Amino acid sequence: MSRLTLALDVMGGDIGPRITIPAVLIALEKNPNLSLLLFGDKQQIDPLVCQFPKSLTSRLTIHHCHRIIENEHKLAYALRHSKGTSMRLALESVQSGMAQGCVSAGNTAALMGLAKILLQPLNNIHRPALVSVLPSVQGGKSVMLDLGANIDCDKDTLYQFAVMGAIFAENSLNLVYPRIALLNIGSEDIKGYKSIRETAELLQKNSRLNYIGFVEGNLLLNNVADVIVSDGFVGNVALKTLEGAAKNMMLLLKGDSSPSMFKPLLDYAKKCLFKQSYQRLQTINPDQYNGASLLGLRAVVVKSHGSANTLAFANAIASAAQQVQQNMPQKILTGLEQYL
Amino acid sequence: MSRLTLALDVMGGDIGPRITIPAVLIALEKNPNLSLLLFGDKQQIDPLVCQFPKSLTSRLTIHHCHRIIENEHKLAYALRHSKGTSMRLALESVQSGMAQGCVSAGNTAALMGLAKILLQPLNNIHRPALVSVLPSVQGGKSVMLDLGANIDCDKDTLYQFAVMGAIFAENSLNLVYPRIALLNIGSEDIKGYKSIRETAELLQKNSRLNYIGFVEGNLLLNNVADVIVSDGFVGNVALKTLEGAAKNMMLLLKGDSSPSMFKPLLDYAKKCLFKQSYQRLQTINPDQYNGASLLGLRAVVVKSHGSANTLAFANAIASAAQQVQQNMPQKILTGLEQYL
Repeated sequence: MSRLTLALDVMGGDIGPRITIPAVLIALEKNPNLSLLLFGDKQQIDPLVCQFPKSLTSRLTIHHCHRIIENEHKLAYALRHSKGTSMRLALESVQSGMAQGCVSAGNTAALMGLAKILLQPLNNIHRPALVSVLPSVQGGKSVMLDLGANIDCDKDTLYQFAVMGAIFAENSLNLVYPRIALLNIGSEDIKGYKSIRETAELLQKNSRLNYIGFVEGNLLLNNVADVIVSDGFVGNVALKTLEGAAKNMMLLLKGDSSPSMFKPLLDYAKKCLFKQSYQRLQTINPDQYNGASLLGLRAVVVKSHGSANTLAFANAIASAAQQVQQNMPQKILTGLEQYL
Repeated sequence: MSRLTLALDVMGGDIGPRITIPAVLIALEKNPNLSLLLFGDKQQIDPLVCQFPKSLTSRLTIHHCHRIIENEHKLAYALRHSKGTSMRLALESVQSGMAQGCVSAGNTAALMGLAKILLQPLNNIHRPALVSVLPSVQGGKSVMLDLGANIDCDKDTLYQFAVMGAIFAENSLNLVYPRIALLNIGSEDIKGYKSIRETAELLQKNSRLNYIGFVEGNLLLNNVADVIVSDGFVGNVALKTLEGAAKNMMLLLKGDSSPSMFKPLLDYAKKCLFKQSYQRLQTINPDQYNGASLLGLRAVVVKSHGSANTLAFANAIASAAQQVQQNMPQKILTGLEQYL
C-alpha cells in the first residue's frame, strides 16, 4: 500500500464515471504520491481508464461492483440495502485500512450514515459535521460548518463544531488563531436561537479560541470570519441559497443570445471586455470549492456535489488527499483535547 | 382625511431624509390618491420639500419631531425611550386613525415591537410575520415569510404563516390557489426540523390550501412556489444570504476599472454589449422588491431596507399604499376564518 491511498465511489453523482474517471486522471497527474481504489462498474470504468497513460494506471486499482445507492433512496432504505454497493465498498476499504480516505458524489444522507457506522466518530465527538471552504470576494477563504449533517444542535454540539472548524481552518487554510463566528440574524447578544446565544457564552469564556461574535448571511462571502458555525439546517439552507443565487445570476448574465451573423464577433468582444470580470467571478466559482468534509470521524470522508463537473470532482479528491496528508483526524483529536 | 393616507418615519435608514424625501416625491407623483404624513426633523425636511411642485405639497403634512430611534439601540432600550420619536409618532398616527399604514427604514426590531404594541395583532393571530416579495429569474414572483419577526416557531405558527402568505400572494401577486412550500434541506418527508415536518402534515390535510411540499435554498429565485414558509431565523438567514450573494457578484462583475484614455469608450461598449444582461439582472434587483410587510396586524406596516436608495424607498411606500387599497388586514382576517 502506498503512503496515500484514497477510495473513490466512482458511480456517485448525477453523471457517474464519465465525470469521476476523467477527474481521476487530473488527480493522479497533479499528485504523484496519490494512489486510488476505484469502486464501480468495470464495464463503464475500463473504456475510460484505458485511455490513461500507463505511468498513471499503475497507481489505480479497479474494484468491480454493479450495485449502487441511488440518489432517490431514503436513508433507512439506503442503509439496509447498502451491502455490495460502490459507496459502502469504498468506505469498507477505509475501514479495513486499504485506503486512508474516501470520496463520493453519491447520496449525501447515505454517505454520512454509512461513514458514521463504518468509520466511527473520534473519541468525545458528539456528532461529526459537514464542513466546506467558502470563497470570499476579497480573496480570502472561510470554512463553514455544519452544512447538513445535524439538524438540531445544542450548545455543546455547536461549541464542538467551532473547535473542529478552527482546527480545520488552521490546517486547510494555514491560519493561526482563526476568527470564529456564529451565523445569526443580528449582532446583538439577544438575537437568535437560544442554542446560539448559549454557544456564544461558552466560546467567549475560552481565550484559546478567537471568538469574534455573530455574522449575518449577507457577509458569508466577505471573509469577516475564518470559521462560520451554525446548525446543519441553517448551514445547509445558507449554502444552497448561495449556490442558487450564484447559478441564477450567471444564467441571467449569459441569457439566450439571439442568433446573428455577428454573434461570434460579439461573443469575442464580450469575452475581451469582460475578461477581468469573469476572472474575478472565478474566484467564487463553486467548482473550486467542491467537496464537503465529514469532520470528526476516524478517517477522511469527502462528499462531492452531485452535480460536480470533472474539475470539481478532481478538487474533491485533492481536498481528501490534503486532509490525509495533514492527518486531519489526528489533528482534530489532539486539538479537541487542547481546546476543550 | 383623504382615502389613502400613509405615515412615514422619514428619519429611518442609513441616510434619512436625503433618501426618504426624494422618494416621497416619486410616490406622490405615481399615486394621485396618496396623502402622506411625514414624521421627522422639520429643519432637514423643509429644504427638500420646498423644491416639490405646489400641486404635490398639498398632499403632504409635516409633523416635526427631533427624537429618533437609533439603529444601534437594542429593542428593550428602544421601546423604553420611544416616546416622541419619528417612528413611534408615525405608528401612533396609524393607531389614532390619522393614517392607514406606516413605512419606516429604521430599527427593525423596534418597528416590529412598537407596531405589535400600538397596532395589535388581528384576532386569532399567534404572531405577526415579516413577508416580502422575491423576484425570480424566470420572471414570476414569490412571497416569503417569516423573514425575522419570530425565531422559534411551532407547527401552528408556521401553518398560520402559510395561510397568511397565501392570502398575501393572492392579493399582491394576483394569484388564485397559490402554491405553498416549506423551506427545508431536502425533499424527503423525514428531512428538517420537527416543526417543519409537523407543519407539512397540517398543510397536506387542508385541501383549500395548495401545499406542494418542500423547497430548498437553491431554488428561492426560481418561482417553484408562490409562498415560501420558514421560521424567522432561517428566513432571515436565507434572505440576507441572497442579498449578500447578489451584491457581491455585482461587485465582482464591476470590479475596479483601471484608468485609461479608452475607458469611456470601453464603458460604452460594455454597456451596449451587456445591455440585455443588465436588463435581465434588473429583474432581480433588490430595489424593486424593497419593503417587508409586517403581516397579521390591524393596520399596514412596511419595513424598508435600511440601505434603501430613493427608488427602493419609493417602492416600499407604493407597497404599503397597495396593501391599504387592497385592505390587506381585513383580507387576512377574512381569509384566516375561511382557511382555518
